[in-house]
Amino acid sequence: MLRKEYDHIILLAHGSPDPLWKEPFETLHHRVAELYGEANTSLAYMELTTPSLEDVVEKLNADVTSVAVLPLFLAVGRHLRTDVPAQIEALQSEKLNIVLLPPVGEDNAVKKAMESVIAGYLGKE
Amino acid sequence: MLRKEYDHIILLAHGSPDPLWKEPFETLHHRVAELYGEANTSLAYMELTTPSLEDVVEKLNADVTSVAVLPLFLAVGRHLRTDVPAQIEALQSEKLNIVLLPPVGEDNAVKKAMESVIAGYLGKE
Repeated sequence: MLRKEYDHIILLAHGSPDPLWKEPFETLHHRVAELYGEANTSLAYMELTTPSLEDVVEKLNADVTSVAVLPLFLAVGRHLRTDVPAQIEALQSEKLNIVLLPPVGEDNAVKKAMESVIAGYLGKE
Repeated sequence: MLRKEYDHIILLAHGSPDPLWKEPFETLHHRVAELYGEANTSLAYMELTTPSLEDVVEKLNADVTSVAVLPLFLAVGRHLRTDVPAQIEALQSEKLNIVLLPPVGEDNAVKKAMESVIAGYLGKE
């Protein structure tokens, strides 16, 4: 798939006060930071815990100009239609362009992987 | 990966009153029903919309004895540690064994797919 590339990807999870809930998102973030560079990805939470999107944007390196927010969500609801676009709009500046990507769950690679997990449990692969 | 196989998989999404939020879960369910058999999978919602887990279990064919509930969640929080296990416990019977699987987001295939999506946006693949 041909994709636009970005200087920096912010992984945005919903957020929960529960440290156990946060763990898989932190693990994913550590993994991609290790694979693709510490400076190229951040993890933020929309609500209920920190760091927020605002916290993360404030700490970006000065040479970052093109940022994409990748929601670690399976579906688009009110949060991704309304709340997050408003947060992003408030963070845009002349120096920093921020775009909101479709949620990771709507990517074909993830949809195919979910199908394969289901197939495996039904003994179909 | 060696997995136990089940007669029937219930895909369990969180639930929302928002039909747009529900759409990708319905699409995934239709897709796997088409691929692996209408009788082998159902879609249920934990809260805020229907069908519920109870609704779906009630409609299972009489020959189904071994059911797995696959949470379409990315992480385990209170819902999957407490609420859903209690719902499942109440639905167990001598004729029907129901197990709760780890959430789809914690499966290696899905984790790898999420990593590849991030890599793609960073121009690393």
